[in-house]
Amino acid sequence: MCDRPKNTDVRLRLPAVCFIWQTAMIILFGIFIRYDSESSPYWVEYKRDHNISSDAENDFYFRYPSFQDVHVMIFVGFGFLMTFLKRYSFGAVGFNFLIAAFGIQWALLMQGWFHSLDYSDGKIKIGVENLINADFCVASCLIAYGAVLGKVSPVQLMVLTLFGITLFAVEEYIILELLHARDAGGSMVIHTFGAYYGLSISWMLYRRNLDQSSRLQGSVYHSDVFAMIGTLFLWMFWPSFNSAIANHGDGQHRAAINTYLALASTVLTAMAISSLFQKHGKLDMVHIQNSTLAGGVAVGTAAEFMLMPYGSLIVGFCCGIISTMGYIYLSPFMEKHLKIQDTCGIHNLHAMPGVIGGIVGAITAAAATEPVYGSEGLIKTFGFEDHFEHRTPAEQGGYQAAGMCVALCFGIGGGIIVGCILRLPIWGDPADDNCFNDEVYWEVRDNRSKFVETTSDSL
Amino acid sequence: MCDRPKNTDVRLRLPAVCFIWQTAMIILFGIFIRYDSESSPYWVEYKRDHNISSDAENDFYFRYPSFQDVHVMIFVGFGFLMTFLKRYSFGAVGFNFLIAAFGIQWALLMQGWFHSLDYSDGKIKIGVENLINADFCVASCLIAYGAVLGKVSPVQLMVLTLFGITLFAVEEYIILELLHARDAGGSMVIHTFGAYYGLSISWMLYRRNLDQSSRLQGSVYHSDVFAMIGTLFLWMFWPSFNSAIANHGDGQHRAAINTYLALASTVLTAMAISSLFQKHGKLDMVHIQNSTLAGGVAVGTAAEFMLMPYGSLIVGFCCGIISTMGYIYLSPFMEKHLKIQDTCGIHNLHAMPGVIGGIVGAITAAAATEPVYGSEGLIKTFGFEDHFEHRTPAEQGGYQAAGMCVALCFGIGGGIIVGCILRLPIWGDPADDNCFNDEVYWEVRDNRSKFVETTSDSL
Amino acid sequence: MCDRPKNTDVRLRLPAVCFIWQTAMIILFGIFIRYDSESSPYWVEYKRDHNISSDAENDFYFRYPSFQDVHVMIFVGFGFLMTFLKRYSFGAVGFNFLIAAFGIQWALLMQGWFHSLDYSDGKIKIGVENLINADFCVASCLIAYGAVLGKVSPVQLMVLTLFGITLFAVEEYIILELLHARDAGGSMVIHTFGAYYGLSISWMLYRRNLDQSSRLQGSVYHSDVFAMIGTLFLWMFWPSFNSAIANHGDGQHRAAINTYLALASTVLTAMAISSLFQKHGKLDMVHIQNSTLAGGVAVGTAAEFMLMPYGSLIVGFCCGIISTMGYIYLSPFMEKHLKIQDTCGIHNLHAMPGVIGGIVGAITAAAATEPVYGSEGLIKTFGFEDHFEHRTPAEQGGYQAAGMCVALCFGIGGGIIVGCILRLPIWGDPADDNCFNDEVYWEVRDNRSKFVETTSDSL
Repeated sequence: MCDRPKNTDVRLRLPAVCFIWQTAMIILFGIFIRYDSESSPYWVEYKRDHNISSDAENDFYFRYPSFQDVHVMIFVGFGFLMTFLKRYSFGAVGFNFLIAAFGIQWALLMQGWFHSLDYSDGKIKIGVENLINADFCVASCLIAYGAVLGKVSPVQLMVLTLFGITLFAVEEYIILELLHARDAGGSMVIHTFGAYYGLSISWMLYRRNLDQSSRLQGSVYHSDVFAMIGTLFLWMFWPSFNSAIANHGDGQHRAAINTYLALASTVLTAMAISSLFQKHGKLDMVHIQNSTLAGGVAVGTAAEFMLMPYGSLIVGFCCGIISTMGYIYLSPFMEKHLKIQDTCGIHNLHAMPGVIGGIVGAITAAAATEPVYGSEGLIKTFGFEDHFEHRTPAEQGGYQAAGMCVALCFGIGGGIIVGCILRLPIWGDPADDNCFNDEVYWEVRDNRSKFVETTSDSL
Repeated sequence: MCDRPKNTDVRLRLPAVCFIWQTAMIILFGIFIRYDSESSPYWVEYKRDHNISSDAENDFYFRYPSFQDVHVMIFVGFGFLMTFLKRYSFGAVGFNFLIAAFGIQWALLMQGWFHSLDYSDGKIKIGVENLINADFCVASCLIAYGAVLGKVSPVQLMVLTLFGITLFAVEEYIILELLHARDAGGSMVIHTFGAYYGLSISWMLYRRNLDQSSRLQGSVYHSDVFAMIGTLFLWMFWPSFNSAIANHGDGQHRAAINTYLALASTVLTAMAISSLFQKHGKLDMVHIQNSTLAGGVAVGTAAEFMLMPYGSLIVGFCCGIISTMGYIYLSPFMEKHLKIQDTCGIHNLHAMPGVIGGIVGAITAAAATEPVYGSEGLIKTFGFEDHFEHRTPAEQGGYQAAGMCVALCFGIGGGIIVGCILRLPIWGDPADDNCFNDEVYWEVRDNRSKFVETTSDSL
Repeated sequence: MCDRPKNTDVRLRLPAVCFIWQTAMIILFGIFIRYDSESSPYWVEYKRDHNISSDAENDFYFRYPSFQDVHVMIFVGFGFLMTFLKRYSFGAVGFNFLIAAFGIQWALLMQGWFHSLDYSDGKIKIGVENLINADFCVASCLIAYGAVLGKVSPVQLMVLTLFGITLFAVEEYIILELLHARDAGGSMVIHTFGAYYGLSISWMLYRRNLDQSSRLQGSVYHSDVFAMIGTLFLWMFWPSFNSAIANHGDGQHRAAINTYLALASTVLTAMAISSLFQKHGKLDMVHIQNSTLAGGVAVGTAAEFMLMPYGSLIVGFCCGIISTMGYIYLSPFMEKHLKIQDTCGIHNLHAMPGVIGGIVGAITAAAATEPVYGSEGLIKTFGFEDHFEHRTPAEQGGYQAAGMCVALCFGIGGGIIVGCILRLPIWGDPADDNCFNDEVYWEVRDNRSKFVETTSDSL
């Protein structure tokens, strides 16, 4: 199966997958998805019935600005972050676009069945919060894409996304509903799950002779600048990501502040480590593009807790160091000894900071006290209501830790199974000597590629 | 007139147009434009008089986030979408900037006279909604620019914009006020009008020997990545575009959801058709950059109606197919047989989806029923108030269709007249063998252009 | 000191500065910084105590969208605006990132001590308005960076930022608190101070033989397009910048409108002058990238006053002309005769328009009358309350002018002192023949730099 030349022509497979799945989406949306009370024309009556005085109380106005920021992170942030490779920018931004557009539809259904199903009529009622959650769900698959960037076909990516979204919705249901863990920014639910899902798939798809593509596995000057567009939009809008679905009022406010501070702190330590461990103290763009974001990941779970401003800075401080060290020491080690080829280094940007974020969240929750939160604030922040009204902060810490384990298991387990599926020789993936090359799946009009390869080889 | 060499020196003409028109703007603004009650310092008293309890009721907070998203679409979205040509990025983003900056001023006046004139004192009172409408108005001229990109001088573009805005304001007045058609996202008013206006102008300015510039009429690797910046910002913020001036509350909320879904669906079918009709199933960046946006255009009119989530997906599904097929078959046909040279393919991105959007809007309006909208919702959504309180949904459908025809007539008729004006040999347009070349109107400092041309020729 | 070869290895100095200063931030944040009442979990009780009916009254919802726009201006706007140099894009966007991330932390402390200190417990209480003010504070240092771009080491930039933020906080305290001048968009406080601070430093760091780096002191085609990303995001979000901390309601609304109009007007006159003074009327990207923004600077102070729409257009009109003329005539003059080397031309973009903005603000304030503002509007707009309730508009105009002088003195005086410090031969700055070169401080992987230099030389 490895000896015969690979057939990378996806002319029938990709359109078939797109058409059939999109048709399925239309049918399922027709059966299940309806507007919720804040986006339906009955809002006028709903407002009167519920004694709501102003349209400004519509959830749209609380969450839409954050939603748009998250949307930018998903499509421009993740898309451009992966354009750093010298000849894989089309694939980075284009396939990111494709799988995110499919993923948000499938996520609305999967998350809807688990979280928003109205049992009175069997319909899923959607509003702006569902759109944000769909974007979040897709983020986990885009993280996974980072590990296999340049080594898979678009058909494989669609399969990765289909299963990724499905696993995500189940895992999220267990963590947020059954365990009642809190995870505003998704350190566990999104980042830990997504990163281990992608790493496990990459491990299953290990390519022995990937070094034959090494002439293309690097950046050029301009591609590094393009990648900074992605980095900066992720960095700037991360406070919106972590606060988008937090509680109205102080919850969103505090989540934004904590994330803002953690990210600022990360930049300094990432730069410091990058300079300290390079020859002549020269900074490396790989670290600036990626490790500067680690603080945002790690502060995700605890973002709406009373982490305190200095606590956020400490989390960011540590993650900047750990993530950059990961790029310098751990990634080469993993590739050589664990056979995990991680194109974008998601282990350093999402996996480790995600796990740290889960731990920070568990500790912060366990340490919560009534003097710090106020009695009403404690209930509101941790949702100690209904079934959970007798839960103590210490217990909550335990459930947070349990949530972390669930995310890990789903990520690793799911990734191995999906990795097996993706090894089938039917998906049109490229040969080892043709990875990281846009010309496999894209019409590339100029002959600059030859030029770039030549100059790179002559280095 | 075609035989003597063209004089493309705009040294006197461009500054003269800019200074005189900008001075005229200042004078007209001095005479006519004032702040409205929500942006004037009398807001404190207005609030008290109208029993408004909170500053949060100021329209600024309902619309400003959407306004900024629309603003990004106009300047970065349209600007960068057109940077795909290898040597016309300065012109794409720079002239887009120039005509949009002029257009928003002229639009504030033109739209103000028709829509916001306070007859008590003869002044136009502006607030954030006027700023959004001015951006919308400019969008139609930027769409038209897409058809003539690379083939006209900046002076011609200013003339195109002056007349385009004027025609737009009249057409908009007839459609929205006289016919009382609804068009939240401007499928008819903005896209259909703008596209046919541009195509008619391009038809009038037909260049027989444009193939002499063919070495420059294409993209290079990096210019395609720049164009994706434009594509993505348009795609991401389109929900804001379609919801920006919709009704407060459920209107804005529903318009955003419908647009989000239509756009997601479009991406999959555009990619599928792109792959299906290319050799070896390779994707074409032209389709990804443009056709993925068609769903947003087509859902514009019906965005705030009860199109239903699956309805939005269906509209997006169809438009992705039609738009991509248009790029593959229709654009070459139009250039060869109809003598319409459409640089950016606006016929596929704006004209066809715009007409579809108008039809979808008419059908959705005609099919509206009280059980679906609620009695108050029906009145609010379609504005069945005052003069129009006895109008039925079926009649509304008819008026929507009539609005579509008005947009088409203004676009084609206006475009032919303005095209005649632009054929006068006084505007400094480039010769046929010098189109798509930034060096005509810009200081270009490097000699890379020669290099790029050489390698392209050697393909 | 100038004769021996320069040591640009920052391997110990940069990490040491980053680690020590970041640790100091953590300690100081631990001692001083806490959440304010709108971002703490006691908000539930605060709401009840203060009879606030809705979470929509939380300042977060009034200011967060503007905050995110300002955040984009700081990191993408300023960062990409400086990428125009052919081989200094990493330094532009990367060092901008570094110093902004440090600066916002230090600014939260410095501004907190002066403005937000709660004397009851000695803590600084922060909310979203503090985050915006921290971004504003950093803006002044990024403006200063523009003057020394490519000629300093990252360690020098950290020192520049440390002192810049400190001076800013004192200057801001004097102008806004003691003199009680109004400066919503920071024409005086941010732009005038920042620009003269940077110019004075550049004057102190004068490099006699900078022409030895002239092969790198220019743009290439793609770097000019990258810079336009910065320009456009600055231009589009400037209305948010000027309105971000204005009064709720009409204040923010009016500031956004005035800025929108001033910027539109500037684009036309900047393009006109650019074309008028160039050979063959060709436009220059330097002017489009920079001078189109001058109107936003100049309307900063008066943005929330009754400048009137036509007044905004006039301010933009004048600044477009002055700023572009500055690039053409003044910058070469200053470099030759005043020994001020101003890489980005901040004198034309920030210094002159900032001073104009201060003057416009003083005149507009002095001309304020009760019929125009209403009695309550006058008090609210100018803050004629408490200590200042007997101040007249004419007096206010005088204090505005005094504020202008304070900004100038702090800028020039502070810049000279900090410039002296930065001349010490311990900071690792590059030699005169190695400026504007990313290879000094960054790992650059391709050998394209040699190629670019060669083709540039062969021009």
